[in-house]
Amino acid sequence: MDSLAPASADTEKTEALARRYGAALPPAGPWNETIASLLDHRSVRGFLPDPVPPGTLETLIAAAQSAATSSNMQFWSAIAVTDPAKRKVLAEIAGDQKHIEQCPLYICWIADLSRNQRVGESEKKDLESMPWLETFMVACIDAALAAQNAVVAAQSLGLRTVYIGAMRNDPVRVARLLGLPPRAFVVFGLCVGTADPKAKNEVKPRLPQSIVLHHDCYDAAPEGRDRPAYDAEMSKFSARHELQAATWTQRVLNRMGPLKSMNGRERMRTALAKLGFEIR
Amino acid sequence: MDSLAPASADTEKTEALARRYGAALPPAGPWNETIASLLDHRSVRGFLPDPVPPGTLETLIAAAQSAATSSNMQFWSAIAVTDPAKRKVLAEIAGDQKHIEQCPLYICWIADLSRNQRVGESEKKDLESMPWLETFMVACIDAALAAQNAVVAAQSLGLRTVYIGAMRNDPVRVARLLGLPPRAFVVFGLCVGTADPKAKNEVKPRLPQSIVLHHDCYDAAPEGRDRPAYDAEMSKFSARHELQAATWTQRVLNRMGPLKSMNGRERMRTALAKLGFEIR
Repeated sequence: MDSLAPASADTEKTEALARRYGAALPPAGPWNETIASLLDHRSVRGFLPDPVPPGTLETLIAAAQSAATSSNMQFWSAIAVTDPAKRKVLAEIAGDQKHIEQCPLYICWIADLSRNQRVGESEKKDLESMPWLETFMVACIDAALAAQNAVVAAQSLGLRTVYIGAMRNDPVRVARLLGLPPRAFVVFGLCVGTADPKAKNEVKPRLPQSIVLHHDCYDAAPEGRDRPAYDAEMSKFSARHELQAATWTQRVLNRMGPLKSMNGRERMRTALAKLGFEIR
Repeated sequence: MDSLAPASADTEKTEALARRYGAALPPAGPWNETIASLLDHRSVRGFLPDPVPPGTLETLIAAAQSAATSSNMQFWSAIAVTDPAKRKVLAEIAGDQKHIEQCPLYICWIADLSRNQRVGESEKKDLESMPWLETFMVACIDAALAAQNAVVAAQSLGLRTVYIGAMRNDPVRVARLLGLPPRAFVVFGLCVGTADPKAKNEVKPRLPQSIVLHHDCYDAAPEGRDRPAYDAEMSKFSARHELQAATWTQRVLNRMGPLKSMNGRERMRTALAKLGFEIR
């Protein structure tokens, strides 16, 4: 904000909501600094080389471990990758995302059934719930809840982040590089660091709440009415960032239409089988 | 904390970490109020009947929509369930969890590929990336990242929450109850409200960071050394809460050993197929 006088809390709130929703403002609700920080999230792909303060990694992991985990099974692990040679390979796997090499802290988040498997083995008990889709899904969800807490903690410390889903372009190569045991795979990476002021970044508009939030029963009717306005918001955002695709509709068609845009991830099931996951 | 004088920030930090890790304290790192709130998370299953302030739901959804979403595909929706008859059925499905009926705000979080499918249909384009495990997994992760932001926002407002994974005990019945279109399913529910001071709740100890956090390469060696101490922490926690299983090791064996403890969730793949998900 460039205004000389400090904006009132109400103005800040309205502005934060406008950055997220454009003209489709949701009803006014409670607000505080934590919520302002959550609303201000944007993915950052350019970082200063400055190291993060000592203990930052451990604080982020403590925040991550404080997230809920299904039945306290704690189906996730994290690997902080500092080795430049490994960072280079990971950046290549991710389609040459240089910020993976440049950010001061890079964390791989692992859906990890291997630890609980080792508990079963050490106690000589068969774990019948291991090979099912449900269990695999819970591991991915556990990892996501944990990572999101780390993201919130990082941002509260003035750091910025970006998730790297492209670790899934080649789960087997990533797993070998990081020495993962069977039944473990990197769901996504996370770059953490201080945003480079020269790197463009901006809050990205999202679908209006009329389309995402339902009451008692799913209702797709508002989509026809409200999607065009969101498409227009995303067109303006795209123009500011010189992205090729204009509307959200076009982005969906580009990203989901041709199989080649999956970068090989349609082979996820085969890759996970190689990594010891049965997903019945 | 019952001390008369306010504890110093360092003391508060050490105490928060001790509640989460027992004696296995991680190295000291940066700290602030947001991180303190994240560390203070505990699942709460007893709520006062007081309604949440007006606009709380919309603020939580704005926080949720501010989380990262893979390629901005926004593969999730939320349904706020207020209808007492529906709440009753959901509580039954979840094995009679009364807090689903009692909490002032209950939100079902949906992995939702149906909306993007409708975009494809409206534009008469086939979406080739739709039927794959990767896409399903991303939808679950999108929903989890979003929900976790809502949890953080709720707690910052003095509210408490508990995730209800048991929505997955019967995904088909839940989907029918909430009128979900094909390719949408409730990943989990979330109770939100003011904690009933009479309901016991406490920060649950987690595995030490030596077991969860790795550096450059996965290392399972610390497990043999450090798991017994965590088992002892969980025994003390269990004793305070009169849970049957004592150690974490025993909890893993109880939860993952017999198939019956999955409450039918080994049939997830069949249920999801009925709901229109291909998960190739």
